[in-house]
Amino acid sequence: MRVLGVDPGLTRCGVGVVEGVPGRPCTLVAYHVVRTDPDDELPHRLLLLDRALTDLVAEHRPESVAVERVFSQHNVRTVMGTAQASGIAVLAGARAGLPVQTYTPSEVKAAITGSGTADKAQMTAMVTRLLRLAEPPKPADAADALALAICHIWRGGTRSKLAAAADRVRRGGAR
Amino acid sequence: MRVLGVDPGLTRCGVGVVEGVPGRPCTLVAYHVVRTDPDDELPHRLLLLDRALTDLVAEHRPESVAVERVFSQHNVRTVMGTAQASGIAVLAGARAGLPVQTYTPSEVKAAITGSGTADKAQMTAMVTRLLRLAEPPKPADAADALALAICHIWRGGTRSKLAAAADRVRRGGAR
Repeated sequence: MRVLGVDPGLTRCGVGVVEGVPGRPCTLVAYHVVRTDPDDELPHRLLLLDRALTDLVAEHRPESVAVERVFSQHNVRTVMGTAQASGIAVLAGARAGLPVQTYTPSEVKAAITGSGTADKAQMTAMVTRLLRLAEPPKPADAADALALAICHIWRGGTRSKLAAAADRVRRGGAR
Repeated sequence: MRVLGVDPGLTRCGVGVVEGVPGRPCTLVAYHVVRTDPDDELPHRLLLLDRALTDLVAEHRPESVAVERVFSQHNVRTVMGTAQASGIAVLAGARAGLPVQTYTPSEVKAAITGSGTADKAQMTAMVTRLLRLAEPPKPADAADALALAICHIWRGGTRSKLAAAADRVRRGGAR
């Protein structure tokens, strides 16, 4: 199964493509960071992001797309742009006829590290190890997108088991 | 000038098309409310919204698009869906090669009623009067979209004067 993960953002949008099957090590296909200029106008930024994501989906031909779910608890100044970027990412997958799944940050963290509250350094270290990379993905923005793709593969392309795991973590029964 | 206004929403998205020139009465061309099912999955909802808005832009051939700017102060439960819908609306205009302008709710209220804090009933009454309609637009969701379009026309397709007016309103010197 090939999955394209998206860590949505308007200024920096991480994209990671990973191949694998549940329960086995995954393989890195590619990763990118799509950037748009904060000084540019919103319509142009969304257009550039839409084109870049549509092109990456066409180039890498994933079987499904995983996008991080945005919460309003995030930085209030940037959360609207992040939410709009996530909408564009979900749409890019849906327009290509692909199944699109969203995951909360804590679901992804729990899937990758066993803890829903892992920090960024721990996540990057695990992604580097799980994909057997010689060094961490650069820029770091790509690591979260790769983690989303790995998370989606390991859950067999469905969210149900992961949601249950995340619930267990929240109840304090984590590994 | 023909303008397509969008009051973004995932469950109900108002769309209003108005024709006119600055300083003269405007004419109603059409209004619609695009609905998606809250029980449906997000990717399908965004896809339906994208198709509907893209079709309405193609059908009505506006010269520009005006979209309400979303704030995180809105209802936290629905604000993410509203932000995603606004991203889809801005993108639909940009993909058609049209200029897209966003306005805050208080900018639109100030333009239509002279007060940035006008309530919904007052806005609907003014839109009905300004477009010389026999009765208020139904459903009411369309009134805000029509107000956005009128606001954009009256400001001559630019936001600068309006932003200045809104600032004056905020400083207490309305109209």
